[in-house]
Amino acid sequence: MIFEVKEKFDNIRISKLKINDIEIETPIFMPVGTQATVKTLSSDDVWNLGYKLILVNSYHLYLQPGEEIIKSFGGVKNFMNWNGLLLSDSGGFQVLSLSDIREIRDDGVLFKSFIDGSTHLFTPEYIVKFQEILGVDIMMTLDICPPYGIDEEELRKFTNLSIDWARRGKSVKEEGKGYLFAVLQGGLNLNLRLKALEELEKIDFPGYGIGGLSIGEPWEKTKELLQNFVKNMPENKPRYFMGLGDPISIMDAIEAGVDMFDCVYPTRVARNRTLLTKYGKLRITKSEYKFDERPIEEECDCYTCKNFSRGYLHHLFKAKEILAPRLATIHNLRFMHNFMENLRESIKRKNYFDFRRNFEKNYLNKYYE
Amino acid sequence: MIFEVKEKFDNIRISKLKINDIEIETPIFMPVGTQATVKTLSSDDVWNLGYKLILVNSYHLYLQPGEEIIKSFGGVKNFMNWNGLLLSDSGGFQVLSLSDIREIRDDGVLFKSFIDGSTHLFTPEYIVKFQEILGVDIMMTLDICPPYGIDEEELRKFTNLSIDWARRGKSVKEEGKGYLFAVLQGGLNLNLRLKALEELEKIDFPGYGIGGLSIGEPWEKTKELLQNFVKNMPENKPRYFMGLGDPISIMDAIEAGVDMFDCVYPTRVARNRTLLTKYGKLRITKSEYKFDERPIEEECDCYTCKNFSRGYLHHLFKAKEILAPRLATIHNLRFMHNFMENLRESIKRKNYFDFRRNFEKNYLNKYYE
Repeated sequence: MIFEVKEKFDNIRISKLKINDIEIETPIFMPVGTQATVKTLSSDDVWNLGYKLILVNSYHLYLQPGEEIIKSFGGVKNFMNWNGLLLSDSGGFQVLSLSDIREIRDDGVLFKSFIDGSTHLFTPEYIVKFQEILGVDIMMTLDICPPYGIDEEELRKFTNLSIDWARRGKSVKEEGKGYLFAVLQGGLNLNLRLKALEELEKIDFPGYGIGGLSIGEPWEKTKELLQNFVKNMPENKPRYFMGLGDPISIMDAIEAGVDMFDCVYPTRVARNRTLLTKYGKLRITKSEYKFDERPIEEECDCYTCKNFSRGYLHHLFKAKEILAPRLATIHNLRFMHNFMENLRESIKRKNYFDFRRNFEKNYLNKYYE
Repeated sequence: MIFEVKEKFDNIRISKLKINDIEIETPIFMPVGTQATVKTLSSDDVWNLGYKLILVNSYHLYLQPGEEIIKSFGGVKNFMNWNGLLLSDSGGFQVLSLSDIREIRDDGVLFKSFIDGSTHLFTPEYIVKFQEILGVDIMMTLDICPPYGIDEEELRKFTNLSIDWARRGKSVKEEGKGYLFAVLQGGLNLNLRLKALEELEKIDFPGYGIGGLSIGEPWEKTKELLQNFVKNMPENKPRYFMGLGDPISIMDAIEAGVDMFDCVYPTRVARNRTLLTKYGKLRITKSEYKFDERPIEEECDCYTCKNFSRGYLHHLFKAKEILAPRLATIHNLRFMHNFMENLRESIKRKNYFDFRRNFEKNYLNKYYE
């Protein structure tokens, strides 16, 4: 893995991330392919939207199709026929949010499958081995995400547990099978985050996930934390904010020095009939779009905008056609791709703040509300 | 419209159907785009599968998005961005099978919308006008499909009503707005069918739909009726069996001289996890496909088979991913396209009966059951 910061002003950076023969420019947004598909899309649909790096969820793939099948297919890239790069999360977040948790123990987390109720144990060691079987390029250490508002002692406990699990994860990591990033916890506590960073840096990871944020806390506090914290992270390693997809929040994070983002946001709202445009969010099922012959966005270069009208999309959603979420997903992912590309261009042209001002003026204008 | 029989042996025929600049060879199978989309697919997905003529349902489009919207978009081709040919049914069949019918009257059929319970009247005149608004190339007259097993007097009554409605439909048909085919009823009664044909030929239509068959009656009886009836239909006009999609039954009908077919069968079973192959129907959710790295069908040239394994499709269906019905639909429609193409080729090469024997040997071998 090569990671090089190419340009920088204030804390904002443009970097090159190269793994195998695939080169990516950060800051970057990664679509989420939870169950080995970005919902409604095939792998080359996603590639053709301009993405070279996507995320899959360990927790879901562990439960379905499961380790044996993925191993037998030689990894999830073969399984889903994805020729780009792949990042997997550790499943820690999903265990807490989707499972009936049985127990958080020192050696891992015991949970019940949401599919059949069976009991499973994720240990920090196993989850690294599992991600090696997935065959991803970037994997994450098992962590516990402390809920917002937890008391300081508990926060400290889970943060330290996540550090311990990162250490144990690294101890079994096999050379040559992807790169293991550690997940940083610490809630909104700057000192705790800095302490965690120091500990993790002693162990030495090639990159860091910033976890436990954007989970219900006020964004202004997160923004402040990011401004104070991210600049202390190692300059020559990728900084990945886990689970952020709102364009405005992404810009806040980029200004603090973050490089990578993922979120189900653009794909989930697409299936829920919300289209992202430079003029804000367009709720396509509103009756005002029934007769609308315009594309979702005049300037958009996506397949959906080039071929179909708002009126047709309105009809497809009303008629509950499967094509509707697909066409909406294609648009929203292309929107995010173009947004990130324009953002990077503005950084290179040294007019990022103009870009942001202009973007916000349009995006937050409530035109479609 | 140009329709020319190019080759013929026994009752089997290869014909050229040309409308505007689009030329098609029959016998042909038409996918069904009920609500202005062949379910899971966009218009160019369908075109790229090799189809140049598809069907839309008047009944569904009348209720949603409705006449005003389609008119405003300049027809359903513009609405769905379809550059091929379009055929619409009259909605008569759907009124009977999907609605709470209020009343079959001499002047039309009164029914309740399955969407909002509102009451509507389809008259034979209106339904032709509606199809003109749809802007299709081939439209059908309003008919009443008598259920299988109805008594002879009722059968006669509905058959005669359908003839009367065909006449009334033609009386309002505007020149230059598509071609109006009449729907032939008559159940399994050969004499009644021949009488209906005689009456309709006096009115003179450019093509005929054979309705009221494959609705629950024993197929052997239908096959016998087709053998005795279809050869009496005018040689120089298309013969369209409405609602037939099973390959074996299609071959029976082609041997009787039928030219056109439509059915939701390949697309509906695809969404219901059944894949059509030359070795029969493959139920992809069976556990034996979990680890199967082969495509659905080795020899198939479809996008799904060229890119994905049975194991991946199995997983997508199990995980209830929206991509699953799409990939299955792509395969099944390509299967039907290739089946029809090979069938036509065999007719031209004068080895149709070898083709059929060989196809049946594989397709009915119960290999996947």
